[in-house]
Amino acid sequence: MPPQLYTEETPAEVKNAKGLHLITMNTPNGQAVQIMLEELKDVYGIDWTTTLINIMTNEQKKDWFLRLDPNGRIPVLVDNTTSPHPFPVMETSAEMLYLQTKYDKDGKFGFTDPMESSQLLQWTFFWHGSGAPYQGQVNHFTRAAPEKIEYAIKRFRNETLRVYGVLEIQLSGKYGDGPRDYLAGKGKGKYSVADMKTWPWVKGWERSGFTKEEMEPFPNVLKWIDRIAQRPAVQRGIGDAYALKQ
Amino acid sequence: MPPQLYTEETPAEVKNAKGLHLITMNTPNGQAVQIMLEELKDVYGIDWTTTLINIMTNEQKKDWFLRLDPNGRIPVLVDNTTSPHPFPVMETSAEMLYLQTKYDKDGKFGFTDPMESSQLLQWTFFWHGSGAPYQGQVNHFTRAAPEKIEYAIKRFRNETLRVYGVLEIQLSGKYGDGPRDYLAGKGKGKYSVADMKTWPWVKGWERSGFTKEEMEPFPNVLKWIDRIAQRPAVQRGIGDAYALKQ
Repeated sequence: MPPQLYTEETPAEVKNAKGLHLITMNTPNGQAVQIMLEELKDVYGIDWTTTLINIMTNEQKKDWFLRLDPNGRIPVLVDNTTSPHPFPVMETSAEMLYLQTKYDKDGKFGFTDPMESSQLLQWTFFWHGSGAPYQGQVNHFTRAAPEKIEYAIKRFRNETLRVYGVLEIQLSGKYGDGPRDYLAGKGKGKYSVADMKTWPWVKGWERSGFTKEEMEPFPNVLKWIDRIAQRPAVQRGIGDAYALKQ
Repeated sequence: MPPQLYTEETPAEVKNAKGLHLITMNTPNGQAVQIMLEELKDVYGIDWTTTLINIMTNEQKKDWFLRLDPNGRIPVLVDNTTSPHPFPVMETSAEMLYLQTKYDKDGKFGFTDPMESSQLLQWTFFWHGSGAPYQGQVNHFTRAAPEKIEYAIKRFRNETLRVYGVLEIQLSGKYGDGPRDYLAGKGKGKYSVADMKTWPWVKGWERSGFTKEEMEPFPNVLKWIDRIAQRPAVQRGIGDAYALKQ
């Protein structure tokens, strides 16, 4: 391993981890990878360890963290089974695709058909680059920003409702072959990385300040939220095991 | 082909296209896919046709466009060689990865090693989800927004400079094995989809309102901009062939 990857400040549980190690917090991005790991556990029995950090204290902006993810964002996946050294993976979606490539040998959460595989990537990138950034700015401008800036709040709320509408177009099958259960795949689709990436954000619509009335135009999205919420791996992936102890 | 994909409003050059067809405008996202196509042409001689649209008139929000990309964003790639019907691909990065999988048989712009492949995805997702959204908001709040909102301008300018700094960390090799030529890959790295996705945005730092003084902390990024700018395919990919005729 290059000496640069860990320093004296790196937590011992990170430095001493064997196998897969996830550095996370129970946010929508953290939950996406947590769910993927829990799903892979149910199918393949894979194992991993977890370090929970508190991003409110900006732990993820410290030097030890930036050596694993120069963008300073949770979650980070560290694979200690690779040679010649631990391999850190940044970016939620890239982490899920890394896990899929390495562990999902039967393609339970992905596709072999190139067009279906592309659909998985299209919807994963859609949420990664449009959904998550917009809903994240809603959360910032309505909750974290020191002043209430109406223009910015309205802009990012409208954009988030617009991207919910994009999901509704897809799940309603408006331009396709009728209602779908999941974002990617032929027919009604198949539960995949694209859903796991998107769901932890969209399920938090109420916490992001949207009303039941505002969600009424998205009946297929609401059904999709409930459908995925019933999965045991999803319930574990957003559950108490990932809650920071006070 | 399902009858829903095209309507009477769909431009004839889209409806009648054979082979690969790109609907684009000469913006950073459009340029990313334009460059990828031009690079593939130089190596493999692939061919495609192009429809240029003007996003200032909101053509991409019309029903005919949303049937190809429900997110209403350029560029869209339509593959007319697939069976049973034309296959539309949305999201810049997903389009580049689709082209890479289908046409880059020798792996000129990607990797076979799973860790290097993951690095390509990590840096592609990084720019797709952090870089592009932040720099896009800089452009919106400094140029398009009807009022000058200092807090938002400062927030998105600072975030964009921060992500330039993340690129600088990678290209400087600060936490790695010394200076790199490209974002992903072992050693000094290899020119890949990750660079093609990122470069069209970062090369526009001056147009986004950043000063030479603000760019001084990023010498390796500036060298990387110049390095990529010299490629013939890159020059064609951002060139006059993609400029809207007035």
